[in-house]
Amino acid sequence: VNPDLAGERQTASFSVEKLTAQLDGGAEHTRIRRAVVEAIECDPVFSREDQYFQSQNERYEAAVRKAVHLQKKMHEMGWTESGPEFKYIYRALSGDVAFLLHRIFMRSISVLGSDKQVAKWIPLATQFRLIGSYAQTELGHGTYLQGLETTAVFDTTTQEFILNTPKISAMKWWPGDMGRSATHTVAFAQLYIHEKCYGVHPFIVQIRSLQDHSLCPGIIAGDIGPKMNFEHIDNGYLMLQNVRVPRENMLNKFCEVQPDGTYVRRGSQKINYFTMTTVRISLISDEVIIPLMKACTIAIRYSVVRRQSKLKPGEQEAKILDYQTQQEKLLPPLAATYAFHFINDYLQELFNRGYQEIQRKNFDMLPELHAFSSGFKAMVTQYCTSAVEICLRACGGHGYSLLSGLPSLYTKILASCIYEGENTILLLQTARFLIKCFMAASAGQPVPPSVTYLAAVKPGKCPAKNKLDFLCPDIYTEAYQHMAVRLVSSTAAKLQDLVQSGVKKHDAWNQCTVQLAQAAKAHCHYITVKNFAETVEKLETKAGIQKIMKHLCDLFALHGMFSNAGVFLHDGYVSGAQMDMVTASYLDLLAVIRKDAVPLVDAFDFTDKSLNSALGSYDGQVYQRLYEWAQKSPTNKQMSPAYERYLKPLLHNTLSKL
Amino acid sequence: VNPDLAGERQTASFSVEKLTAQLDGGAEHTRIRRAVVEAIECDPVFSREDQYFQSQNERYEAAVRKAVHLQKKMHEMGWTESGPEFKYIYRALSGDVAFLLHRIFMRSISVLGSDKQVAKWIPLATQFRLIGSYAQTELGHGTYLQGLETTAVFDTTTQEFILNTPKISAMKWWPGDMGRSATHTVAFAQLYIHEKCYGVHPFIVQIRSLQDHSLCPGIIAGDIGPKMNFEHIDNGYLMLQNVRVPRENMLNKFCEVQPDGTYVRRGSQKINYFTMTTVRISLISDEVIIPLMKACTIAIRYSVVRRQSKLKPGEQEAKILDYQTQQEKLLPPLAATYAFHFINDYLQELFNRGYQEIQRKNFDMLPELHAFSSGFKAMVTQYCTSAVEICLRACGGHGYSLLSGLPSLYTKILASCIYEGENTILLLQTARFLIKCFMAASAGQPVPPSVTYLAAVKPGKCPAKNKLDFLCPDIYTEAYQHMAVRLVSSTAAKLQDLVQSGVKKHDAWNQCTVQLAQAAKAHCHYITVKNFAETVEKLETKAGIQKIMKHLCDLFALHGMFSNAGVFLHDGYVSGAQMDMVTASYLDLLAVIRKDAVPLVDAFDFTDKSLNSALGSYDGQVYQRLYEWAQKSPTNKQMSPAYERYLKPLLHNTLSKL
Repeated sequence: VNPDLAGERQTASFSVEKLTAQLDGGAEHTRIRRAVVEAIECDPVFSREDQYFQSQNERYEAAVRKAVHLQKKMHEMGWTESGPEFKYIYRALSGDVAFLLHRIFMRSISVLGSDKQVAKWIPLATQFRLIGSYAQTELGHGTYLQGLETTAVFDTTTQEFILNTPKISAMKWWPGDMGRSATHTVAFAQLYIHEKCYGVHPFIVQIRSLQDHSLCPGIIAGDIGPKMNFEHIDNGYLMLQNVRVPRENMLNKFCEVQPDGTYVRRGSQKINYFTMTTVRISLISDEVIIPLMKACTIAIRYSVVRRQSKLKPGEQEAKILDYQTQQEKLLPPLAATYAFHFINDYLQELFNRGYQEIQRKNFDMLPELHAFSSGFKAMVTQYCTSAVEICLRACGGHGYSLLSGLPSLYTKILASCIYEGENTILLLQTARFLIKCFMAASAGQPVPPSVTYLAAVKPGKCPAKNKLDFLCPDIYTEAYQHMAVRLVSSTAAKLQDLVQSGVKKHDAWNQCTVQLAQAAKAHCHYITVKNFAETVEKLETKAGIQKIMKHLCDLFALHGMFSNAGVFLHDGYVSGAQMDMVTASYLDLLAVIRKDAVPLVDAFDFTDKSLNSALGSYDGQVYQRLYEWAQKSPTNKQMSPAYERYLKPLLHNTLSKL
Repeated sequence: VNPDLAGERQTASFSVEKLTAQLDGGAEHTRIRRAVVEAIECDPVFSREDQYFQSQNERYEAAVRKAVHLQKKMHEMGWTESGPEFKYIYRALSGDVAFLLHRIFMRSISVLGSDKQVAKWIPLATQFRLIGSYAQTELGHGTYLQGLETTAVFDTTTQEFILNTPKISAMKWWPGDMGRSATHTVAFAQLYIHEKCYGVHPFIVQIRSLQDHSLCPGIIAGDIGPKMNFEHIDNGYLMLQNVRVPRENMLNKFCEVQPDGTYVRRGSQKINYFTMTTVRISLISDEVIIPLMKACTIAIRYSVVRRQSKLKPGEQEAKILDYQTQQEKLLPPLAATYAFHFINDYLQELFNRGYQEIQRKNFDMLPELHAFSSGFKAMVTQYCTSAVEICLRACGGHGYSLLSGLPSLYTKILASCIYEGENTILLLQTARFLIKCFMAASAGQPVPPSVTYLAAVKPGKCPAKNKLDFLCPDIYTEAYQHMAVRLVSSTAAKLQDLVQSGVKKHDAWNQCTVQLAQAAKAHCHYITVKNFAETVEKLETKAGIQKIMKHLCDLFALHGMFSNAGVFLHDGYVSGAQMDMVTASYLDLLAVIRKDAVPLVDAFDFTDKSLNSALGSYDGQVYQRLYEWAQKSPTNKQMSPAYERYLKPLLHNTLSKL
């Protein structure tokens, strides 16, 4: 181990192993997770070592190979989908595996299909007698589902639906696993019966032959080509030309087309709504927080190995993490990983409660759950994407090499801001809920517990008298609360003013959206700070964990105030002099947390294989690894044909003879 | 042309052609530029159509092919390096060409070499009898040049320098054109004579045979492997093992090692310093502003073609640019392209003046030029990188496709934050200059004209009374000036307090660096706003150009205040009520500029080939282009081998038999 890195570990103020267990939810979980990781990583089929050298085609091949091999592996290891190991598999594979949409295919049939449909399709899918996909998004339609243009016309004579792509913007575009793998898909289309449109419905459509994988008649499908990342996924396009599917292929738990064309709606569709929200919550941990934890691990380990320039004249070059500016880049993201880990626990618990209510047919929590899943998905993906970029840039030139692992973490996490609901749209959904609750609360009506704070508008001022006061969670939590209430209430007031002055409601809404999005972010930020502070309160006081978590909580909160000073200063709740105290405490905390920076990332417990980074390895042998790895690059495999073709004639002055 | 896009062009408030000429510096320049672009783009060798499908090896091959072909082309067209066409060639090629470091190789010899060395090497390089590179950065050393570890020991017996890479961190790493192409390089090494170190010096070293391109004895070199972009460049590594070069190969304009080992320094090295600063300025236009202009063109054209969701119930789906949140994403970056275009003119002029002074042996302007080049390089690259990312995300899923052109613009511009001086380091250099000037100004000493404002600390308050007042350039320029002075002066005070309280000078500096970097940014932001306002003043009042530029200037300034509200509110110079006025005016401006958004990007005058984007073409046929282009992807070229190998056995349940 690089001695500079080893030294950082000797002075940890807390037990790394205890913190790992805390993050895993107990030592037993840690044990199971490590066993899964070990089993996956010692299997060469799952290796990711060549990943940065591979073409899109090679990445796809590898992901399919891994997905198929995983079926064997699970059988071999005795892992099942309901077992405790299952949730660690995806993390252990770093998501580098195919057939993720196959699972969404199954989930949609389970949720939207009748018992008969479930009985027919789920066993086929479980046994991989078909490969499923999920075809919703179209070239011209993403966010606004009602605008989908694919049509499904019911033909009473043949008892079939005829599916069509009426124009190019109606072509399905982006569905994963569909470009090259899937044999079936759940396609969403506007249902027409006797020329009347009944809106968007899901249909099971076979797209490729189960015999030879050739495209079925009337199907045009393929891969949408190169993307910023996700080379391993065959995101595809799909055109339907008079494709007929039997009446039984419309998923009909909630509505049915009877043989004579009568349309029957039954039960509640609200549960669908709930499925969408759970997907948003479930991606936060695997797709967003873990990548940021990896980026922090890489950048922080590198920053204690890399020495550059001198802090003190005459001394050795300094570790770059000893520069305040480097601390300011890396430590707030580190604090954020913990803040988001804890808010994720909070959201999971909220959703479990919600799910129990829903099973008792009580749908009251749905608006709140929808607002929370939307707002936090947007806030966390946005924050973590920016933070991964900061980590990348904080590693200078070497961060820009794919071998650092940081570029691929960045280009992948960036997509999370777009998929499962574009972030701006989601924030506005949260804002709509907040405005509604604020109006209700102002009128004395009851609101969900998480937003009762909106009713408690206290004018007052921040009572902090010196910089130490800002290390008191009550002080900063109050400041965040005040700020969130102010942003929600002032935007509600602007909306009302506009409408009262004669602006139409939808125009008024559009004219407030910049501020509405800001208010929604403020709400989520406040809840995150509050939850972090409450979590720290509840932590065991031994093993030094509570103390370091308290520092991180303070840092997360004060960094947020320092970076968004305007919203706190705006109405004078926090004064300029107090903001100087915030800044002073914030900068002090950087120096404090810097001492534990390496132990704090060690606690994430990533193996070298899972980081797949020349800069982030546990032993800190950065330069050796970069050199050895680069030599394996295909760009070093042979003398380039460019020499014979271009360089030689140029250098030998025989170009003109070519 | 897509009718939604065509409609946007009919209502332009100004003459697009006039604005293009304005940006080019006159209609004659526009004519020459278009001729160069036309000649390059009609030549199939320069095509970039396959770029998004190519591997790193293929990109490198293509870049070499283009570089060699360019030599012929220039001859054919009668273009010379000193002709008016030359500066447009790189833009026309979108930088996708090899041998850029060959030019730096030549430039360093011209600047650092003696007349004899220039006479020997420059003709060889000009005729491409060798291919040069520039080997400065090492695996362990980037920013801090004094820390370089490569050694050059003078051997008096043979009159040679013996170059060595004493350990792995001393290996040269990153030099462009070196991984596979270069035959020679200028290598920087610590000079040792009779065991005494004389610091870093440049040496011409041959690394590959001119006959067969094999590595020379003692040379280990290769390609550093995959990067986030720049696949077309063979960034390389280089290890030197007792490589001997004759005494004449040390570039010796400013210092010489005589045969007996006597070291002689002569002349001033200050001019080197100036060369570094000019490189920083010269990259701003080609590598930073133009990419942002392209990103804006792509995202804004797409945003008037893409319709999604409804603004008004019952109406057609709305153009996404009609949503305030989309305007807030795209219009401030658009305003910034103009702000930076004008600041670039300002910097060019400043540097031309500086160059004239230097030729008269007057080096007084150097500190100012260095501070300006550092700060503006950092500010502009940082802003433009963020803005390109915003453009990418503003295009939703399609922005994430490489075919949009946006991912490659982003991954390339990101590097500009790191190369030619890491941005944080550069900002701190600017800050050091500002603090020095502030202290001098406070003591009544003279300071360079660009920073005299630091002496004029006026307490006062912003006099704006309503939102229209914030459309007055004097009002916002004053606010920026006040803010910059406050940040510089308060940080200077903190520094002084620390030192007076006994903290050592270098520790005090480190403890202020977060705020110092902020102060440097504030200074650059202020100068940019001031320069934009002054430029608008001087514009011709006809053709509507001045009016729209005034709107953009207001938007740039007010967006900056809205986004950094804290620094304006902090001391009460701007009140909360005034910040509400800023917000109101800012949001009003979005709606005003939105009307001219398409003409404003049309004025950048990019051809479809130079944008190389399915979303940004002049005719707006987005979906058709995405579909046709995706079909050409290598992922659609054949049935994947994954089918026979994995999918078929899986689907046919014969996996176990494998």
